[in-house]
Amino acid sequence: MTDRVVLAFSGGLDTSVAIPFLAEKTGAEVVAVAVDVGQGGEDMEVIRKRAIDCGAVESVVVDAREEFAADFCVPALQANALYMDRYPLVSALSRPLIVKHLAAAAKQFGGTHVSHGCTGKGNDQVRFEAGLAALYPELKVIAPARDYAWTRDKAIAYAEEKNLPIETTKKNPYSIDQNIWGRAVETGFLEDIWNGPIEDVYSYTADPAEPREADEVIISFVKGVPVALDGRHLTPFQIIAELNQRAGAQGVGRLDMVEDRLVGIKSREVYEAPGAIALITAHMELENVTVERDLARFKRSVDQRWGELVYDGLWFSPLKKALDVFIAEAQEHVTGEIRMTLHGGRATVTGRRSEASLYDFNLATYDTGDTFDQSLAKGFVELWSLPSKIASARDARLA
Amino acid sequence: MTDRVVLAFSGGLDTSVAIPFLAEKTGAEVVAVAVDVGQGGEDMEVIRKRAIDCGAVESVVVDAREEFAADFCVPALQANALYMDRYPLVSALSRPLIVKHLAAAAKQFGGTHVSHGCTGKGNDQVRFEAGLAALYPELKVIAPARDYAWTRDKAIAYAEEKNLPIETTKKNPYSIDQNIWGRAVETGFLEDIWNGPIEDVYSYTADPAEPREADEVIISFVKGVPVALDGRHLTPFQIIAELNQRAGAQGVGRLDMVEDRLVGIKSREVYEAPGAIALITAHMELENVTVERDLARFKRSVDQRWGELVYDGLWFSPLKKALDVFIAEAQEHVTGEIRMTLHGGRATVTGRRSEASLYDFNLATYDTGDTFDQSLAKGFVELWSLPSKIASARDARLA
Amino acid sequence: MTDRVVLAFSGGLDTSVAIPFLAEKTGAEVVAVAVDVGQGGEDMEVIRKRAIDCGAVESVVVDAREEFAADFCVPALQANALYMDRYPLVSALSRPLIVKHLAAAAKQFGGTHVSHGCTGKGNDQVRFEAGLAALYPELKVIAPARDYAWTRDKAIAYAEEKNLPIETTKKNPYSIDQNIWGRAVETGFLEDIWNGPIEDVYSYTADPAEPREADEVIISFVKGVPVALDGRHLTPFQIIAELNQRAGAQGVGRLDMVEDRLVGIKSREVYEAPGAIALITAHMELENVTVERDLARFKRSVDQRWGELVYDGLWFSPLKKALDVFIAEAQEHVTGEIRMTLHGGRATVTGRRSEASLYDFNLATYDTGDTFDQSLAKGFVELWSLPSKIASARDARLA
Amino acid sequence: MTDRVVLAFSGGLDTSVAIPFLAEKTGAEVVAVAVDVGQGGEDMEVIRKRAIDCGAVESVVVDAREEFAADFCVPALQANALYMDRYPLVSALSRPLIVKHLAAAAKQFGGTHVSHGCTGKGNDQVRFEAGLAALYPELKVIAPARDYAWTRDKAIAYAEEKNLPIETTKKNPYSIDQNIWGRAVETGFLEDIWNGPIEDVYSYTADPAEPREADEVIISFVKGVPVALDGRHLTPFQIIAELNQRAGAQGVGRLDMVEDRLVGIKSREVYEAPGAIALITAHMELENVTVERDLARFKRSVDQRWGELVYDGLWFSPLKKALDVFIAEAQEHVTGEIRMTLHGGRATVTGRRSEASLYDFNLATYDTGDTFDQSLAKGFVELWSLPSKIASARDARLA
Repeated sequence: MTDRVVLAFSGGLDTSVAIPFLAEKTGAEVVAVAVDVGQGGEDMEVIRKRAIDCGAVESVVVDAREEFAADFCVPALQANALYMDRYPLVSALSRPLIVKHLAAAAKQFGGTHVSHGCTGKGNDQVRFEAGLAALYPELKVIAPARDYAWTRDKAIAYAEEKNLPIETTKKNPYSIDQNIWGRAVETGFLEDIWNGPIEDVYSYTADPAEPREADEVIISFVKGVPVALDGRHLTPFQIIAELNQRAGAQGVGRLDMVEDRLVGIKSREVYEAPGAIALITAHMELENVTVERDLARFKRSVDQRWGELVYDGLWFSPLKKALDVFIAEAQEHVTGEIRMTLHGGRATVTGRRSEASLYDFNLATYDTGDTFDQSLAKGFVELWSLPSKIASARDARLA
Repeated sequence: MTDRVVLAFSGGLDTSVAIPFLAEKTGAEVVAVAVDVGQGGEDMEVIRKRAIDCGAVESVVVDAREEFAADFCVPALQANALYMDRYPLVSALSRPLIVKHLAAAAKQFGGTHVSHGCTGKGNDQVRFEAGLAALYPELKVIAPARDYAWTRDKAIAYAEEKNLPIETTKKNPYSIDQNIWGRAVETGFLEDIWNGPIEDVYSYTADPAEPREADEVIISFVKGVPVALDGRHLTPFQIIAELNQRAGAQGVGRLDMVEDRLVGIKSREVYEAPGAIALITAHMELENVTVERDLARFKRSVDQRWGELVYDGLWFSPLKKALDVFIAEAQEHVTGEIRMTLHGGRATVTGRRSEASLYDFNLATYDTGDTFDQSLAKGFVELWSLPSKIASARDARLA
Repeated sequence: MTDRVVLAFSGGLDTSVAIPFLAEKTGAEVVAVAVDVGQGGEDMEVIRKRAIDCGAVESVVVDAREEFAADFCVPALQANALYMDRYPLVSALSRPLIVKHLAAAAKQFGGTHVSHGCTGKGNDQVRFEAGLAALYPELKVIAPARDYAWTRDKAIAYAEEKNLPIETTKKNPYSIDQNIWGRAVETGFLEDIWNGPIEDVYSYTADPAEPREADEVIISFVKGVPVALDGRHLTPFQIIAELNQRAGAQGVGRLDMVEDRLVGIKSREVYEAPGAIALITAHMELENVTVERDLARFKRSVDQRWGELVYDGLWFSPLKKALDVFIAEAQEHVTGEIRMTLHGGRATVTGRRSEASLYDFNLATYDTGDTFDQSLAKGFVELWSLPSKIASARDARLA
Repeated sequence: MTDRVVLAFSGGLDTSVAIPFLAEKTGAEVVAVAVDVGQGGEDMEVIRKRAIDCGAVESVVVDAREEFAADFCVPALQANALYMDRYPLVSALSRPLIVKHLAAAAKQFGGTHVSHGCTGKGNDQVRFEAGLAALYPELKVIAPARDYAWTRDKAIAYAEEKNLPIETTKKNPYSIDQNIWGRAVETGFLEDIWNGPIEDVYSYTADPAEPREADEVIISFVKGVPVALDGRHLTPFQIIAELNQRAGAQGVGRLDMVEDRLVGIKSREVYEAPGAIALITAHMELENVTVERDLARFKRSVDQRWGELVYDGLWFSPLKKALDVFIAEAQEHVTGEIRMTLHGGRATVTGRRSEASLYDFNLATYDTGDTFDQSLAKGFVELWSLPSKIASARDARLA
């Protein structure tokens, strides 16, 4: 039986050219799989046909937008996932979803190999291959950019030589990955880390410095899942999409950082994630209101580890599953509403209310109605500080 | 010998009235100690004299601004200390400094007791008393607000009855604590957590929504210590003060959150910390450039614990000292410059440069000059994902 | 309506005398509740009657041995709970169970108060009162030893004065708490931490130094729960009880340590926990075989925190619940058998087998059949060490 | 100039044969470096000469026993380093030391390459190569076993063919690595993890089941460094060596476990480490007496990470250095004496004394002299449990 390569297909130049290239290089048939994770751009049907036109024996498009939002973005939100306290894991979230659909297509169409377009110095190769190792370890992986030093220039030459039905003229200086959770941009001049980004880099967000009217939104959560905006019940995908528009219009969610890649190097990355940043900001404050202190403190270390694992390609790992159940338990009471002002690049919480609130006005107030028994404090303070006190006395004794 | 109470003296109504009140209540002499931590307001000499006028036998003022910046704010900066990922520990930093000077005054003037104005439901009582337990455990503590239910209304009545030389007419609805690192505000209407703050609450920051010209600053660090602004060498105090002005003028550093107090309740807090937020943002990014990945990941848990300990009043604890040396070692190469735009409530890093940078252009670039050997990646990825792969195969086998 | 005090009743001198003492002191009726957690000693019916004889209006005994083993000891086993890496949480586990039954009795019999015999310097008061605060916050707590400075000497005098039907002659120098999970002993001469324990201290364990025949046992686990010994299906209680006998007969599980109490002091404790130590040793090794590396590494921090929380009285806390679900998920594949030799104070694993094993002979062997592809290692090693390499080069450059 | 390969030389068959093999394979000259880390066996001078006889152009032996004990074993002791709570890092500690001397020899003798005998599926290749990447990144690495599939059988055939002056007849079924800190054994029949070890496997320890007289030892520490046994001042090397004898004679320190290797597989390992286990047991208890609670709790996570890093080959990493300074600070007061009984495979602490003790008899005692103010406890307990209480009330309200 002929080998079949299941190709992660974007519709762009590189993966289009990869279809005949892989067929030629391996003698295998190519099955193209394009997954819609809200990246926008061309119609998926156009993309599907282009794969056929380039020689794919099968071409599948999957509308995974709701699935991506519900099963990948929402868990990241519940983990307040910000790698290095900044990056909301845009690409790191879509890769395991794509892997899932590649593995499904391989099962459906008799795939023996999988191919992706990642280079050997990025994180995404790890996310693809670690995911495949977990879901479908029998599949062999071909990464032309890494394994055959396949470059964009070679792809253009190959396309022209083979007369492929692909536009090869436009030279885009940006390397972009985008989905509903955000957008990542790399480009030559940003590799000098003293250079600042220019306005041209951005697409999801307007310039925060432009004067405009503020927007106010009320986000409702049930057990850590966003369920409504301004009282309108919506799916997670719809909520993220609307917040991308509204927060993006206010310039919220631009990020510019030097980042530690899994493969051991530091890289400079620019991101935009207006919806993600607005949602995480709101979710963190709702947790402040509804999650008990010790749980909140420990959850920070769980959240950090969750973000590192997912960044590092280990979405399908046993530790990830165990952190997930911890986080799910912690979300049990993260139900309520956050009012937020979106303006000038800022997403600012201005109000919070919840049936499950642990904020107790009567314990907190300094006004009449105060029910906190201050006489308890003296004993608490003395025993709280006793270990330090004994240690200080020891230090003084020995000094 | 007569007992002597060393009083933490602010110059305000409550502590002024406390002088005769404590004398009357305890039969002791009162020594007033006022510490300048950059809180601004009245001249320290005026404050010193007021204590004498109210009956203090000794009145001391300490200009601790440089000490506070160098020995308390800079360590917090190096720990990127943000309690609950938000609050830069404004009051929590000044309390151990004040404690140090109270203990010194007690030694100098024969103090047998210490008195502070904190209530029994806040964090500051713990910070005072845990600090004193460590530095001078023999001192007894009197906290009139907590131990004698001493309130502002009682203080005003007492002042009028005793005809004390203190202004008692102005009713300030805000309870404020401020120093060079920031400003904390509590007030009745904010105890309803659905209410947003009003502009009147703020003093260190201008309204970020007002259109204005952006400001750009270059902050230089040596081993994690800020040493210059725009090339001008300055002390940490001068740097924080100038950034409070410049970042404050751009509306940077407003915070509004529900917070977990050490005494077990949640409270609503509004803060302003323009200089602190600008500096921490810059410092974090310089760490991204100069600190190795594993160290950076572990340091997050150290930073979190450091912030919790200091918030929880344990500045003088053995664990705090051990975390300090870890952090100091991690700062060894945090040397370089960060360029930052201050505008519209945002402090945005736009450039970074460092002799100690771990960012290697030649390893990071996708252009010519790339020295990263992509052939290494395949083996790395396979062994990296091997434990998950074996576990997934086990799960599939047993399913 | 008359107040009713629900008393945690052991049947011993102190709590027997407490019945009339509490009635006299508070004017309330006393409801005695004795809980069998496998502490052995007198028949529970004798204990029940003694309470009535001393004046209790109701006297309840609860056989909670199976519940204690299944719902309290097994979770501790799954967390490998060893406070300070040593102490298997003997008393800390029984207190929340007792609290649960006290709260139930209070509901059943109209209790308004709860009374326990703990002093003010131990951990158990916290475990009782934190548990009650969570389960039945309306109940008021009376702790005669702490609140009325009630001592054994006073109890004896009171018993003799009131002519209570209690033996008061035997002076036991040991303060003991014991249950199916272990036994804790405190006594005067051990308060000198240079003194070693004497053989007389021990009751659950024979002298490990005595020569005897070794015992071998095979322990079967399903999802982290012990289910059989030597192939005989048993309840957790039966397994712990049998291992207490068999491991105890070999001198396994003696512990002697200086321990950090929650109330801020260090104390010297001697424990015996033959069954617990044998089970935890077996369980840890079965986890080594069946739990993936990253999960196992993170679980150590979860286990540590679980042990601290339970030691610190926070069994009913939100963090405890969230750690529980993490641990439950991690136990999913902890199924298999451990063969263990019990001898001379040692519980030594000699064999392990599991359908869910992640140990892969073909990957591990150095003999024929080796399927590990060593060519992958070079790339792995280079990228694994790349961050350190770059940092070392930086350090050398700046040196 | 001719290339020179610096070979990590053990004197055994494999590395002896590697000398002519490497010369033939690479055309380079071979410099043999043998490092004495207390592994015992042949005289180092005999080993030195054998390398020359096999064709090395230079042969160096380094007596690194004191250095190894002081600079590698003592830090491991201070970190209570037990990988997976069991394994005291025997081989993982010697590798960075050997790397240091290989790098020094390369500098001295103009080495361009380094060669080690590790396979591609073990941890030691990582420790060698990560160490070299940090200390001397220009050196190229040759690992014949991994890179040329060089096996013992091939080595024997090669030795006989070339008529090398090496004994090739003895077939040792055990693969052994040993040094002053312990001994690791692998062998075919132990690859079946249901098989128990046989007595023949062991060399550092006598059978713990043999009846014999107990031994008692007093170990003195200064700042976490062992400095004396039974009052005799000794170097760390001497102390470890003597304890290997004395604890080994009592059967202390046998370990048998399934272990997570860095390269992603689980392996079965048998260790003996009598001195290490006795010292770590003593050191942990001295920390219990002298280290404050919060510091001790956090240090457990530092210790765990330290052990993982060193196991994983990252001795020379920035994080390791920062953990080292934390640990050093935590050892400041770990000074005192531990009395310990060595018997029947057990190393049991029976007494501890220290000028720096935090154990306070007067706070701990239940006898007369008790200075603990029990009235403080009530307030402490109430505020300690307040967050859980509020959360439980919320849960009940919503249930």
